[in-house]
Amino acid sequence: MDNFTFQNPTKLVFGKGEVKQLSTLIPKDKKIMITYGGGSIKKNGVYDSVINALKGYNITEFGGIPANPEYEVLKEAINKCKAEKIDFVLAVGGGSVIDGTKFIVAGAKYEGDAWDFISGKATVKDALDFATVLTLPATGSEMNCGAVISRRETKEKYAFSSTHCFPLFSVLDPENIYSLPQRQITNGIVDTFIHTMEQYLTFDNKTYLMDRFAEGILSTLINIAPDLTSGKKDYQTYANFMICATMGLNNFISMGVVQDWATHMIGHEITALCGLDHGQTLAIVFPGTMDIMRKEKKDKLLMYAKNVWHIDTTDQNKAIDLVIEKTENFFKSIGMKIRLSDYDIKKDVINTIVSRFEQRHWNVGENGIVTPNKVRLILERVY
Amino acid sequence: MDNFTFQNPTKLVFGKGEVKQLSTLIPKDKKIMITYGGGSIKKNGVYDSVINALKGYNITEFGGIPANPEYEVLKEAINKCKAEKIDFVLAVGGGSVIDGTKFIVAGAKYEGDAWDFISGKATVKDALDFATVLTLPATGSEMNCGAVISRRETKEKYAFSSTHCFPLFSVLDPENIYSLPQRQITNGIVDTFIHTMEQYLTFDNKTYLMDRFAEGILSTLINIAPDLTSGKKDYQTYANFMICATMGLNNFISMGVVQDWATHMIGHEITALCGLDHGQTLAIVFPGTMDIMRKEKKDKLLMYAKNVWHIDTTDQNKAIDLVIEKTENFFKSIGMKIRLSDYDIKKDVINTIVSRFEQRHWNVGENGIVTPNKVRLILERVY
Repeated sequence: MDNFTFQNPTKLVFGKGEVKQLSTLIPKDKKIMITYGGGSIKKNGVYDSVINALKGYNITEFGGIPANPEYEVLKEAINKCKAEKIDFVLAVGGGSVIDGTKFIVAGAKYEGDAWDFISGKATVKDALDFATVLTLPATGSEMNCGAVISRRETKEKYAFSSTHCFPLFSVLDPENIYSLPQRQITNGIVDTFIHTMEQYLTFDNKTYLMDRFAEGILSTLINIAPDLTSGKKDYQTYANFMICATMGLNNFISMGVVQDWATHMIGHEITALCGLDHGQTLAIVFPGTMDIMRKEKKDKLLMYAKNVWHIDTTDQNKAIDLVIEKTENFFKSIGMKIRLSDYDIKKDVINTIVSRFEQRHWNVGENGIVTPNKVRLILERVY
Repeated sequence: MDNFTFQNPTKLVFGKGEVKQLSTLIPKDKKIMITYGGGSIKKNGVYDSVINALKGYNITEFGGIPANPEYEVLKEAINKCKAEKIDFVLAVGGGSVIDGTKFIVAGAKYEGDAWDFISGKATVKDALDFATVLTLPATGSEMNCGAVISRRETKEKYAFSSTHCFPLFSVLDPENIYSLPQRQITNGIVDTFIHTMEQYLTFDNKTYLMDRFAEGILSTLINIAPDLTSGKKDYQTYANFMICATMGLNNFISMGVVQDWATHMIGHEITALCGLDHGQTLAIVFPGTMDIMRKEKKDKLLMYAKNVWHIDTTDQNKAIDLVIEKTENFFKSIGMKIRLSDYDIKKDVINTIVSRFEQRHWNVGENGIVTPNKVRLILERVY
């Protein structure tokens, strides 16, 4: 187990009907900007319940934050915050809206161009207070301080994080996600699964407890996935899905843990270049990562095979083959495609991605083991 | 899964050598009081490393906080804080010192008698800043806001909690616990095990993920216990022990969970009346709780049998018998006694404990199912 520092101050307010708590959670004198995405919250009742809970507050709003929140749009929101002297932002949405809102609240307290936080030219030193009402479990953004921001003009997608960007609180009502379309549920399952994997499937670092926690999230997702994707609106299933997504990326299961994130970095390039959903890219890339890095990840692949899939064979190569197949079948069972070619993507995108990794001198994954050449092998494996 | 609110602001600073971080964690202008217990920290080097890390600070100290921290002693520390205008308390010790320190920091900001927090006459409205350097993993007090305080004159032992009583940070260095005597290691294992059980072994409340997390702590403890109690100083074993103890009682595994705590309440009476260590009382009472409440806890007993002890039988009663035996054998294997009579305690203490429960009209456990009569049956079962 490595040395680590952990702190996560976000308050979780979890359960049915909890949106009504907003008026006890936000001071009355705040000038609030509500941020949201494409407007689904106006159809499924979430917007109305938020507005009802905030009667008497001074509210403005900023809608239209796209999936893969774009710098170009977020800049407008930053300007609005500054112009209208907003002092509290309430993100009502999923990971894109929440990630975008982190960029907004940091940018609103910064004189320069907020892209500086992404390019590394500046670090976040302050941010507006903000909170979230989660409508899509997937990214864990509701209880962490990171965000991924895209730039349309350059087809780039990068992460930034700052301890100033923890939500003060997040309201998680499982009933708020009943109306999610199948595709978003499926993306959310895969996203949570791979977040957990990025913090688990490296090498055996003697993080016994965190390994068990990670396996707990993976097993729970596997168990609830059939009900989640069946269209059945079972409260407990949705509630466990929400808490899995939050616990998958709020720094808890990474205490003392070696992390990977190669699959995500490769996936971000696919989204940036080909427009696939984030979850879709992960379902494609991850089985490739498992296969191509099978030597380096052997101990953890075997642990995963045994503890999550109950694969019981002394033939290690067979166990790894089997667990890759089980994982692929799991993704397929919930309606995910698992090959680049399933999406009608031309093979030369692999060259583009590999040269991006080469140009940036990116050796990613634990200890930099995923070199640009491994990226090529991974992408060819899953084309 | 029940609705819940969760927040835990404590910063964990974990790993070898991290005590040196104290000077970056505590503002230079603070007037610090260091609290500790019987003085073992002066023998094992922890005191010296703390003092070294705090060179240049204005420091005073208050030692001698006893196991089961006593009101009578803590009152002196409160007076000292007030008289010397202390504005930061650093608890260096285990659960007793940290619990006592929570009482001290709350009492130091209160005009009246701090026992009011225990009796319920007052609630904590403010507290001095405080932090901890943990020297004994067991209670989880280093990352929660609760404490258990004893009163010598009345042989009472009660809990209190307040969100003002979260440590600002806790330093957990596994090397700081290498010198712990066997008895304290064993107590710590059992204490962590039963904390987890109190948040797990109730009824099936569809808290799938939290159940897996609880099983993760239980399994990890079972796996590391032989090495922990062998006298071998293996860093990774001690590190996992520390993080198990912290995660066992920092509100994480209780998200949306139904809780029990009957074993603890019965155990506290045994400590108050007979002087047994807290961990010792839990190892005695818990198997009794499992057996006497086997009907009410059936689903969870079977889940525990299957997922933690891999007991594979369709005969439910047999599975429960077996898992009680396995649990008792686990406690015995680490050197714990599991019967009241093993400690030369007279049987009429059972009457005293039961009448205390009766007088207080205490029906404890989930949904109050552990009535005073059940307390009698439990204690008779484990006499």
